[in-house]
Amino acid sequence: MSIVIVSTARASSHWVKTLKEKDESLDIQVYPDVKRPEDIEFAISWKHPEGLYQNYPNLKVIASMGAGVNHILKDENLPKNVKVTRIVDEQLTKDMGQFVLLQCLAISRNLFTHLHDQKRKHWEVKRYQTPEQTKVGIMGYGVLGQEAGRALKANGFSVVGYANSSKTVDGIRVYGADEKGQFLKQTQILVCLLPVTPNTQGVLNIQLFKKLQPNAYLVNVARGEHLVEKDLISAIDQGFIKGASLDVFQEEPLPESHPFWNHKDIQITPHIASMTDPESVAKQLLDNYKRMKDGESLINEVNRNKGY
Amino acid sequence: MSIVIVSTARASSHWVKTLKEKDESLDIQVYPDVKRPEDIEFAISWKHPEGLYQNYPNLKVIASMGAGVNHILKDENLPKNVKVTRIVDEQLTKDMGQFVLLQCLAISRNLFTHLHDQKRKHWEVKRYQTPEQTKVGIMGYGVLGQEAGRALKANGFSVVGYANSSKTVDGIRVYGADEKGQFLKQTQILVCLLPVTPNTQGVLNIQLFKKLQPNAYLVNVARGEHLVEKDLISAIDQGFIKGASLDVFQEEPLPESHPFWNHKDIQITPHIASMTDPESVAKQLLDNYKRMKDGESLINEVNRNKGY
Repeated sequence: MSIVIVSTARASSHWVKTLKEKDESLDIQVYPDVKRPEDIEFAISWKHPEGLYQNYPNLKVIASMGAGVNHILKDENLPKNVKVTRIVDEQLTKDMGQFVLLQCLAISRNLFTHLHDQKRKHWEVKRYQTPEQTKVGIMGYGVLGQEAGRALKANGFSVVGYANSSKTVDGIRVYGADEKGQFLKQTQILVCLLPVTPNTQGVLNIQLFKKLQPNAYLVNVARGEHLVEKDLISAIDQGFIKGASLDVFQEEPLPESHPFWNHKDIQITPHIASMTDPESVAKQLLDNYKRMKDGESLINEVNRNKGY
Repeated sequence: MSIVIVSTARASSHWVKTLKEKDESLDIQVYPDVKRPEDIEFAISWKHPEGLYQNYPNLKVIASMGAGVNHILKDENLPKNVKVTRIVDEQLTKDMGQFVLLQCLAISRNLFTHLHDQKRKHWEVKRYQTPEQTKVGIMGYGVLGQEAGRALKANGFSVVGYANSSKTVDGIRVYGADEKGQFLKQTQILVCLLPVTPNTQGVLNIQLFKKLQPNAYLVNVARGEHLVEKDLISAIDQGFIKGASLDVFQEEPLPESHPFWNHKDIQITPHIASMTDPESVAKQLLDNYKRMKDGESLINEVNRNKGY
């Protein structure tokens, strides 16, 4: 009975070390050095090669290393009866809320404009907006969206949300799918925290950008698949929106030839809004491993049809 | 009986308009177009020409347009019996707290490094520090320092303070003048919110930088006079500190030839951490004007000897 760690984009050594510290008896194999594929029942996975999991005949669970699972579910050759879990980590959630707060403060305080001015030795005092004067719209109101909303509201921002169904969460009005226009037309800073599903891919497009408040700003901290990248450049160049802070991209690392690198109104961070810390999630992964062995129900199992 | 508005660095028209809206009967003169200097009893002042106030024989009060008063007190020819007031504005205080929070989040989340990486098309995932792992030391623990401490603590940062005398404010340990070494040696992000006095000028110097935690970061949102500017560059170049976010400078606007503009580890904003909004402070100024006329004690009067 083995665990396999499959990570083509992130280093595996920390994971092995952290898991072993918690349970020395674990049998851990690291892809691609898998000697006994028939032993593998549990995979800890980040951006695996398509079709890989067909090679492990006794695989029962694929555990994502992070909050997202689209990198697993998009594999059309994923074995049918394998369960998929995601990380719901309190620290991961808090980190995301803080990163969104940082971006919204930076935008309302014109920080990116000032840093751009510095490059050209230009001193220009600009009146800022207070958080109270700034309406942030959060698309996707799950665990991460709610934490971002809480952090923003606690620091004075005016916040609205958007989700499948309308509701009120901690005093924040969340608009439903049939109220999308109402949500967009009041939004000055749009924060995308949607899961990736067939319905949400490409949702950040020029039609949507046109419906926001004038001089709106986009913060995408969900997934690159949500954004039609060429539409963002058109929308900025045509003046529909003012700029964007992007942490995620269609292709990561962002290719050197990509026009985002040099765009003065687009700020790039390398997918660091919220980073899984092996130490803080190892406990959760091992708990599910034990539950699998004991035949118990898993924590944070994903509905493979819904995609979240 | 007249008010004079003296502002060599900020536009006066907004002030006249806002004050007149509150009280149409006010007689307001705008420097340098002062027709009847003997009528002037109350000055609303920002960076006046040295010696100017000797020309107004009946002047009773000089009210600073902002939180700082050093621009008034440094005038060696300031009439002896004139009272000096400062603005203590709740919005000004909140704005400062939020700007400090923005800077501390940006530093702990490596935002400036990522934006620098963007310029050279370099994708590098860097592990961030959580606020809980980040110790912020606030020098100067008056109204503004306390608000910064509150905002930082509310968002998870570990905070200590430094003031003349040791105390505990809202659960934050504030070290006294005789405990400076203890305060500095644990500080990772040093936030300067001191008033400008003969004792605090040049306090941010190389000896102080050497006492901070390795890879510390400076945030100066007080006044340019606090920082020995050449020491900052030496301290960064010699590796004593990692970088700085500066909102204030010895000379403002920062001269085009100044080495700060091009320094990759120094972030510049044009004195916008907290900007006086005429609307929100006009009430406070007029209140003091009325108190002066009625012979009552003034609000937020400064001790001219202490300088704050």
